[in-house]
This record gives sequence, C-alpha cells and structure tokens, in this order.
Amino acid sequence: MPALITYKTPVIADWVDYNGHLRDAFYLLIFSYATDAFMDHIGLTSDARDATGNSLFTLEAHINYLHEVKLGEEVEVRTQIVAHDRKRVQLYHSLYKAGGDEELAASDQMLLHVDLAAGPKSAPFSEHSLEALCSLTEAQSDQPAPAYVGRTIGLSGK
Amino acid sequence: MPALITYKTPVIADWVDYNGHLRDAFYLLIFSYATDAFMDHIGLTSDARDATGNSLFTLEAHINYLHEVKLGEEVEVRTQIVAHDRKRVQLYHSLYKAGGDEELAASDQMLLHVDLAAGPKSAPFSEHSLEALCSLTEAQSDQPAPAYVGRTIGLSGK
Repeated sequence: MPALITYKTPVIADWVDYNGHLRDAFYLLIFSYATDAFMDHIGLTSDARDATGNSLFTLEAHINYLHEVKLGEEVEVRTQIVAHDRKRVQLYHSLYKAGGDEELAASDQMLLHVDLAAGPKSAPFSEHSLEALCSLTEAQSDQPAPAYVGRTIGLSGK
Repeated sequence: MPALITYKTPVIADWVDYNGHLRDAFYLLIFSYATDAFMDHIGLTSDARDATGNSLFTLEAHINYLHEVKLGEEVEVRTQIVAHDRKRVQLYHSLYKAGGDEELAASDQMLLHVDLAAGPKSAPFSEHSLEALCSLTEAQSDQPAPAYVGRTIGLSGK
C-alpha cells in the first residue's frame, strides 16, 4: 500500500518562533493530531471512544528534528506501525512537505490502550482493533524500514 | 544547590484535551519554554541572541509520560545538565507540581548551539557559555541522577 497519510496541515502562525520556524513542541502537536487520526483506522473513532471509554495514551515518545519547517508550509504525516502487542502499539510518524520525499522530522512513540472509566487503566485492544492493527501491519510490509526507531540520546552518538 | 527551576506555569485551557488533561505535545511545549529560560542561565539571553545570532536548536528529544496533569494545576520544570561538549548540551527537564516531589514527566534532550546568520550552522559555545555550563554542572553534582536518560523505545522493554 502507499504510505498511510494520517494528517495534513499548513504550519500556522501560533506554531512558529520569532524566526518564523516551527517550534520543537509543535512538531509533536502535529504528530499528536496524526495519532488521533490513526485511532480512526483501528476503530477508536471518537464515537467509539465515547461508547466504550477506550482510548490511547502516549507512554513515551522520541523525536528527531531533521530540517526546519517554515510558517505557511503545507506538511503531512505518514504513519507506520512498528510493532504492537495486546495493549500497546509502537508508531512511527514521519513529517514531510505535502507530496515531498525528504523527511523533516520523525517520531517513534509507544502508546497504551486504556479504559478511561476504570481509572484510566491499561486494557487489551478490542478484537476489532487488533484485527485492524494486524491488517495494517501486513499492508505496510512493503514500506521502507523507518530510519529513526529505537534511538538513544547521548553525546557519544550511540 | 537546590534544583534549578527553569519554568513555572498553570496548565491553561489551550493545552488540555477533551478530558481536561494536558495533551502530550504540550508537556513538550512547557519543556521548550524551560529551555528558553535555561538559555538565559548560560548567557544566551534574547539580547545576546539578537547581538550574536547564536541560539540553541533541539536536535532530538525523548519524553516519558508518568502521570496525567489536569487543567489549572500549577507545574514547574526542574532542569539538570546531563552532559555537554563544545557545541552540544544534553538537558534533562522534569515536570513536577509546583513544590511537589513526584515526577510527572521527564524529557531527555540534545540541543545544538547554532549561528543563525551562517545558515543556521552549528557553532561552538562562547567561552562565557562554556564557563556557565561547567559551573552549573559542578553546582548540580549533588542532585540525584535523572531517572529517564538514554532510554530506548520498544515492546521488549529494553
């Protein structure tokens, strides 16, 4: 399948610093909206979330800033499933100019499926969500391997 | 020295999701403001940035979400220098309730000193900034070691 485009947006004035460049935190906001949209692909639509009380929480995220992004640029997020188990899914979000082929930023994220009514507390995915995760993973098997996964921050450049 | 508190803020309405909880990206925005404030501590004040064209760019960030944070809560960021070299500084930002003792989130970040006029292009810290980094590191030597540094994301729990 072609890359799964989960989110498209122009870079708006609220998101840029005094130099007109996208501020670090707002790359993550764009990826956060991409996660919201990804949830629709696995049956966690906002209606389903209201009905079941299930949602995804971000446990941990890693982000690599590769290029500056300027006010007004149209960008898109492409999303791959790196792995999942019964309760967690590891996503790889990449930022590109719309239709472009240069990765501007990348984020490796671990998300937990939760039952909001119960705490929130971790909860297994529904069968429907698990099936969707499996089919999407299968469909994405021809995508290139994500470049910025499992990274460690350190001066030694590990 | 006591922990270096770089930023304090109430959690505002713009930053919370439909459940009234701080959205993942806005934890990073609070840490981003903390980095701005940290720059003042090493001589990269906004006046100095205007005069020299030097600034810090985020190369890479890792964030661990430990607890939910609610609308209206007063939070503060405590910042430690993990390491630095001639051009880079690795910071550890921790989020707490103001005056609290439970870590709500942690971010391990690698920042690069840049000359904006030259590109931007990486540039060595000034002697003044290097001295400030060394004295702060020395002064923080009695702080407990940051818990969430050098982490890797993965389902195996590495």
